Amino acid sequence: IMVASLLWSFHITAIWKLQTTHRTVMCSIDEEVAKLLQLKAQLGGEDGKHVFVLKTAKGTRDYNPKQMAIREKVFNTIIGCFKRHGAETIDTPVFELKETLTGKYGEDSKLIYDLKDQGGELLSLRYDLTVPFARYLAMNKITNIKRYHIAKVYRRDNPAMTRGRYREFYQCDFDIAGQYDPMIPDAECLKIVYEILSELDLGDFRIKVNDRRILDGMFAMCGVPDEKFRTICSTVDKLDKASWEDVKNEMVKEKGLSEGVADQIGEYVSMQGGMDLAERLLQDPKLSQSKQACAGLADMKQLFSYLQLFQVTDKVLFDLSLARGLDYYTGVIYEAVLSQMIQAPVVAEQNGALPGDEASVSVGSVAGGGRYDGLVGMFDPKGKKVPCVGVSIGIERIFSIMEQKAELLAEKVRTTETQVLVASAQKNLLEERLKLTTELWNAGIKAEVLYKKNPKLLTQLQHCEETGIPLVAILGEQELKDGVVKLRKVASREEVDVPREELVEELKRRTSKLP
Amino acid sequence: IMVASLLWSFHITAIWKLQTTHRTVMCSIDEEVAKLLQLKAQLGGEDGKHVFVLKTAKGTRDYNPKQMAIREKVFNTIIGCFKRHGAETIDTPVFELKETLTGKYGEDSKLIYDLKDQGGELLSLRYDLTVPFARYLAMNKITNIKRYHIAKVYRRDNPAMTRGRYREFYQCDFDIAGQYDPMIPDAECLKIVYEILSELDLGDFRIKVNDRRILDGMFAMCGVPDEKFRTICSTVDKLDKASWEDVKNEMVKEKGLSEGVADQIGEYVSMQGGMDLAERLLQDPKLSQSKQACAGLADMKQLFSYLQLFQVTDKVLFDLSLARGLDYYTGVIYEAVLSQMIQAPVVAEQNGALPGDEASVSVGSVAGGGRYDGLVGMFDPKGKKVPCVGVSIGIERIFSIMEQKAELLAEKVRTTETQVLVASAQKNLLEERLKLTTELWNAGIKAEVLYKKNPKLLTQLQHCEETGIPLVAILGEQELKDGVVKLRKVASREEVDVPREELVEELKRRTSKLP
Repeated sequence: IMVASLLWSFHITAIWKLQTTHRTVMCSIDEEVAKLLQLKAQLGGEDGKHVFVLKTAKGTRDYNPKQMAIREKVFNTIIGCFKRHGAETIDTPVFELKETLTGKYGEDSKLIYDLKDQGGELLSLRYDLTVPFARYLAMNKITNIKRYHIAKVYRRDNPAMTRGRYREFYQCDFDIAGQYDPMIPDAECLKIVYEILSELDLGDFRIKVNDRRILDGMFAMCGVPDEKFRTICSTVDKLDKASWEDVKNEMVKEKGLSEGVADQIGEYVSMQGGMDLAERLLQDPKLSQSKQACAGLADMKQLFSYLQLFQVTDKVLFDLSLARGLDYYTGVIYEAVLSQMIQAPVVAEQNGALPGDEASVSVGSVAGGGRYDGLVGMFDPKGKKVPCVGVSIGIERIFSIMEQKAELLAEKVRTTETQVLVASAQKNLLEERLKLTTELWNAGIKAEVLYKKNPKLLTQLQHCEETGIPLVAILGEQELKDGVVKLRKVASREEVDVPREELVEELKRRTSKLP
Repeated sequence: IMVASLLWSFHITAIWKLQTTHRTVMCSIDEEVAKLLQLKAQLGGEDGKHVFVLKTAKGTRDYNPKQMAIREKVFNTIIGCFKRHGAETIDTPVFELKETLTGKYGEDSKLIYDLKDQGGELLSLRYDLTVPFARYLAMNKITNIKRYHIAKVYRRDNPAMTRGRYREFYQCDFDIAGQYDPMIPDAECLKIVYEILSELDLGDFRIKVNDRRILDGMFAMCGVPDEKFRTICSTVDKLDKASWEDVKNEMVKEKGLSEGVADQIGEYVSMQGGMDLAERLLQDPKLSQSKQACAGLADMKQLFSYLQLFQVTDKVLFDLSLARGLDYYTGVIYEAVLSQMIQAPVVAEQNGALPGDEASVSVGSVAGGGRYDGLVGMFDPKGKKVPCVGVSIGIERIFSIMEQKAELLAEKVRTTETQVLVASAQKNLLEERLKLTTELWNAGIKAEVLYKKNPKLLTQLQHCEETGIPLVAILGEQELKDGVVKLRKVASREEVDVPREELVEELKRRTSKLP
């Protein structure tokens, strides 16, 4: 009743305003409607009970401890690789001045989250880590850096959460900025992708490479008008999901190319190979006419020679159909794809599908990047360029795959690292348990103790089984009298008395062998 | 000129709209003004040059590699402690539904960052990690968990960045949720604070403890009216920065207490001690009349008995002046303070103070927390309570102190972990350098190589000096012929020839001894 009368008084206010003043009417109505909708949302319906909507924001999710354990493992592998290659790390704020992001993402700008204007600067949530990186370089006048950055980015996309796509998701970027001899840093980026995908053990994969200059030269020689390069590029980019027929159709019917031009493009984009292909295309009567294409092809040859030294050519493929969406690439581009389709259980959502539902998921691209020599210059007051090349690891897809794998193999994922539970077999031993636990903590042993005065031994053992704690240190009257601790292996139920003063050493000895 | 004409055409449009239609005028004018202001901001003034404002948002900062190296060290210590105590970790989205945060922070709600309404849900950036944790527990019906969460939170405060206060900053929370025997989890939280502050080596510290029930009982017995408990609590909370005279003044003149009542409070809040004080106050003629105070004092005794077992009583102080600001505490509360004042160099800001400026900084509280048994119930549809106790480590202040320390001691902070640089003494050895680097990477050695075809040996050695790489593996014609690598210690300049096939083992042997 109270709610109804509140709503009514809002209506009355709105109508009253309608009748009295003319000037502010349209604005006022909009405001009143907004207020009413907000009130309604807060009230959660018409029943007058204030109910919280218990959910996370659309397109976002919590990570539970099991997901976090997998996430930590993946991060450790990736960060380990970045550090092996001598990378530093930086961090930037989650929001940037709105204008920092303006004009960097083309059509995708509509997916940027803006903050409400609460008086002060206009701010937006970061859309990727590359633009903040370029801003950081220009702002601090840094011309040389090899850095990684792992952080969340935000896109108001329509999320396909079942396929591991969210509005809040991690990016995991490695970039090398600086003026160096050609293709050496570019080759190291590919080496890094190779190492990470191998170490994560995600099955077979391929890394496709191409070069924007080769694409542009090819378009020019096939007769595509300059102003259509980028849009034809986007169409070519669809070849990983669509057939040539569909792609050609889009080129001819939507983008206005002639059939002849499209067919010439079609011949090139079906080509795949290695260094040999680059050499052959340098002799190609059409491509060799384009300075741009020749520069790209010469660099491609150079790239493959370094990739041979890095021992990664078995997975790298020069593929003329690779185009990549982003405008800012200026040279080599690449993308890693997993070879298998993976059967994915639908991610359990709080407000949607049931866990256990199955959906066929094409994993597709798990890493991508390229050279972008112009982006930093967009931020420099004098337009001073800093050449950059980098790669972004598609960490969310990798999480999904790892989660699936854990589920399929019915792996027990441990969410804690506790090595030993301090337990008692009899009553009234809380003090003794806390004393021993303190000894262990002070010696750097990962130890737990149940927060109960008199827990049953069974309860204590069950806690170990559930959480995967491998050892139990059991105290009883007899053990205390004898100055020993009964050390029990949870898996085998073997028990042995260990002198109290040797317990820390014994635990260290045993846990150093445990996974 | 182009800009001027653009601005002009906007004006014309605005005026034209003014003349033609009446209904939408006010809305239109606002829109046009907004567009013009935006355009002006983008253009960066009247000179027609498009200039970006190169800065981060107000109250935020980038972390450079050196700061990140310190941050990583601090995080490792803290996470190591949490894991030693058997904690899991979770993560929640950076924004929540606005209503999730509504009504949780009292007056501070005005400091919450809202997102722009772009159609869809109303969202806000998280203000702390405690409310999202409570939402997570209620949403997933979790009644038992020991978890830590390290993540950024957002407050539209007026930042005192020189004192390590920002609008975007890390929180580092450890909480135990569940129905357990009294004061055991509470004592573990204090043990954790003790361990972390000791390990980080920040100098001497004290952990003050009190209990909301003791405060409330004391207020009641001194004659403070019920409805003034919280506001008097806030006044008492100022005792760490203000004198008793000022605090009393506020109680009497602003909050309307009588002098007599204020003086009675004054006597209590000057009391400090340990378990003995709790015992004495249980006999206090006034306090012993209050059931609440007695419950709090009995628990305080119990707490100290556990703290003795945990061996931390040397730093813990029962202090009746500790009040803490947040409304949601229901039992024990605590706060850790460093004993020394620290001489802090002003943090270099892109748009402000010069680096090297010195300012005296009171570090004050570096950790705080308490018991909050009612918060989860605010999210549960049936109001089901989950008792919780937790602690938040003031990580940003700790970063500032560590940065200062590094600066004062002129410590060289390494930002990479590279163990060896692969170098050459002669020209035309790029291929050999890349080959050897590949061998090292594949063996898990952290190795770098300069991205130049023919770098000078001096340049390569300088790179090691600058970045702290301890070893150089030098290749030359002679070494290649002999099947050896010249391994040079950068610090001592000692050189020794190592057979190529033994290099990996030799590097592993040497680097395992290095810090």
